Amino acid sequence: MSSISILGLGAMGSALAATLIRKGHEVTIWNRTLSRTEALAAIGATVAASPAEAVAASELAIVCVLDYAAARAVLASAGDALRGRDLVNLTNGTPDDAKSLAAWVEAKRAHYLDGGIMAIPPMIGEAGALILYSGSGALLEKHRAALGALATCRLLGEDPALAALYDLALLSAMYGLFSGFLHAGALVASSGGKVADFLPLLLPWLEAMNGTLPDLAEKIDSGLHSRNVVSNLAMQTIALENIVRASQERHISPDFIEPMRQLAAARVDRGHGGDDISGVVELIRKQK
Amino acid sequence: MSSISILGLGAMGSALAATLIRKGHEVTIWNRTLSRTEALAAIGATVAASPAEAVAASELAIVCVLDYAAARAVLASAGDALRGRDLVNLTNGTPDDAKSLAAWVEAKRAHYLDGGIMAIPPMIGEAGALILYSGSGALLEKHRAALGALATCRLLGEDPALAALYDLALLSAMYGLFSGFLHAGALVASSGGKVADFLPLLLPWLEAMNGTLPDLAEKIDSGLHSRNVVSNLAMQTIALENIVRASQERHISPDFIEPMRQLAAARVDRGHGGDDISGVVELIRKQK
Ligand SMILES: NC(=O)c1ccc[n+]([C@@H]2O[C@H](COP(=O)([O-])OP(=O)(O)OC[C@H]3O[C@@H](n4cnc5c(N)ncnc54)[C@H](OP(=O)(O)O)[C@@H]3O)[C@@H](O)[C@H]2O)c1
Ligand SMILES: NC(=O)c1ccc[n+]([C@@H]2O[C@H](COP(=O)([O-])OP(=O)(O)OC[C@H]3O[C@@H](n4cnc5c(N)ncnc54)[C@H](OP(=O)(O)O)[C@@H]3O)[C@@H](O)[C@H]2O)c1
Repeated sequence: MSSISILGLGAMGSALAATLIRKGHEVTIWNRTLSRTEALAAIGATVAASPAEAVAASELAIVCVLDYAAARAVLASAGDALRGRDLVNLTNGTPDDAKSLAAWVEAKRAHYLDGGIMAIPPMIGEAGALILYSGSGALLEKHRAALGALATCRLLGEDPALAALYDLALLSAMYGLFSGFLHAGALVASSGGKVADFLPLLLPWLEAMNGTLPDLAEKIDSGLHSRNVVSNLAMQTIALENIVRASQERHISPDFIEPMRQLAAARVDRGHGGDDISGVVELIRKQK
Repeated sequence: MSSISILGLGAMGSALAATLIRKGHEVTIWNRTLSRTEALAAIGATVAASPAEAVAASELAIVCVLDYAAARAVLASAGDALRGRDLVNLTNGTPDDAKSLAAWVEAKRAHYLDGGIMAIPPMIGEAGALILYSGSGALLEKHRAALGALATCRLLGEDPALAALYDLALLSAMYGLFSGFLHAGALVASSGGKVADFLPLLLPWLEAMNGTLPDLAEKIDSGLHSRNVVSNLAMQTIALENIVRASQERHISPDFIEPMRQLAAARVDRGHGGDDISGVVELIRKQK
């Protein structure tokens, strides 16, 4: 068992700390707002009075705060206590954020590992939780007992920016899913249906459509969007127009559907009506 | 075994016809462009010279063309041949489209059932394919042998508009999924990654996030967006900003992410930063 400090006790930091305590590790906690330490102190955490004290207290310090501005402020206030310490940052940010914080921490002679948590707080410590890491593989190995207690650990490479990139890519997919789900929910509710009752239709459908992603992935990778097309973009553009029309009839704004409708229509206009929907990627990955 | 005519032999109509032939039914086909009948004629379909001839040839006629304008044109050209016939329309359209075509067909003294195909052509006739129906349940029962050979049949109710509504709701969810997937794919490709290699991370992640939909559904149904929140909207807005910043750094346009970022930020501005993301639905289902 090892000693870990958790800096930041929002929904996620609290779940990290509670899981480590439950699994028998020695946990020190710090949070800007002191009241958030109480529930964890009651189950055995030691409360540190400052970030410096928290960093000094344990073999490993994990930072999980709202954003990089907060993470940088917390680490800056730890000052010389950082020297020689092992730090894992699980705060969400961009690849460039991770890269520059890694450089800053290393200039303080501390050791840095960047991570992206692919789980919601109740999943922490349970099967299915994943944390992506990038940066020092040695640091991950050294603290595998503690980090492995939180989630499956997946090291993407030594470049500290990689975890943030893949984290944000996965979040993009999730926000697309949520965007479509909210629109679908609004349509169902508009005719008096319950969204909960719609799930037995929706969940198998999403699973079936996930099954089409490998084919689309291959088309994106190869750039060949016109091979073996079973759902051509000209036809799909009409389905997208139908969604927009039906939504407007029901006073639902089509914000979540409009980007795909517009980009699909633009591809059709450019002569790609027979291509697959994968081809729409070409319109977002270049400057238009 | 029964006799069925298929009007419209695009990717989907051809899959419907081929499946019925393969399963031993007697199939008559018609398509605006004659050349598309050839492959099906070679495996046993009878080619009709006109929509009227196709409708007259079988116990059941299934229309599956590009859009309702085409479906109406095809049915109008069938003229008096419609009288007394059983028609299933599997063309994608809005609830209002279905309602008015049902009325038009019934005025011709034909029997109408509306359907929405929740499958791509290769899934037709296989496990996992679903067709939503609404309208005459008697017609569905009468032709269950043929219709059941195509997909699982799910009658949503007697209102002919229901299948279109739920079809478009499911398609909305799919287009959200695809929007997020294309954005994620562009991010991964921007650093030289292959989208196909990203799938082993993506697919379990999407499955885990599907697991959060029942909670969001309950929140949409109840309108109570602030209960048991583990991922508050203020925090999620920052993650959305991070996606947008990281995308711009990589010359990927954030079109697919912007609606959620903007609507989430608007909810936070209105004092709902502690709510769940389900609350964003309130901003699309009312006139803003
Ligand atoms: N919740 C999730 O579903 C989830 C999933 C994956 C990743 N994450 C990531 O985990 C991180 C934390 O998320 P969360 O859900 O725990 O958010 P949260 O519940 O809103 O908590 C935010 C935390 O950040 C602290 N904080 C904010 N500004 C600060 C500052 N200037 N200085 C010091 N501390 C500051 C807050 O301290 P106070 O208590 O003093 O306000 C609080 O501890 C985020 O980067 C998020 O993207 C969250
Ligand atoms: N493919 C899918 O993944 C899928 C999935 C679910 C539902 N659907 C729905 O199935 C329907 C057909 O889709 P599809 O994939 O088969 O499309 P498609 O491959 O593009 O075929 C379109 C069909 O419509 C016919 N058509 C177009 N305009 C016409 C007109 N004015 N008069 C007569 N016929 C006309 C075409 O005839 P020509 O050969 O003469 O052009 C062709 O048979 C659409 O409503 C679509 O939303 C498709």
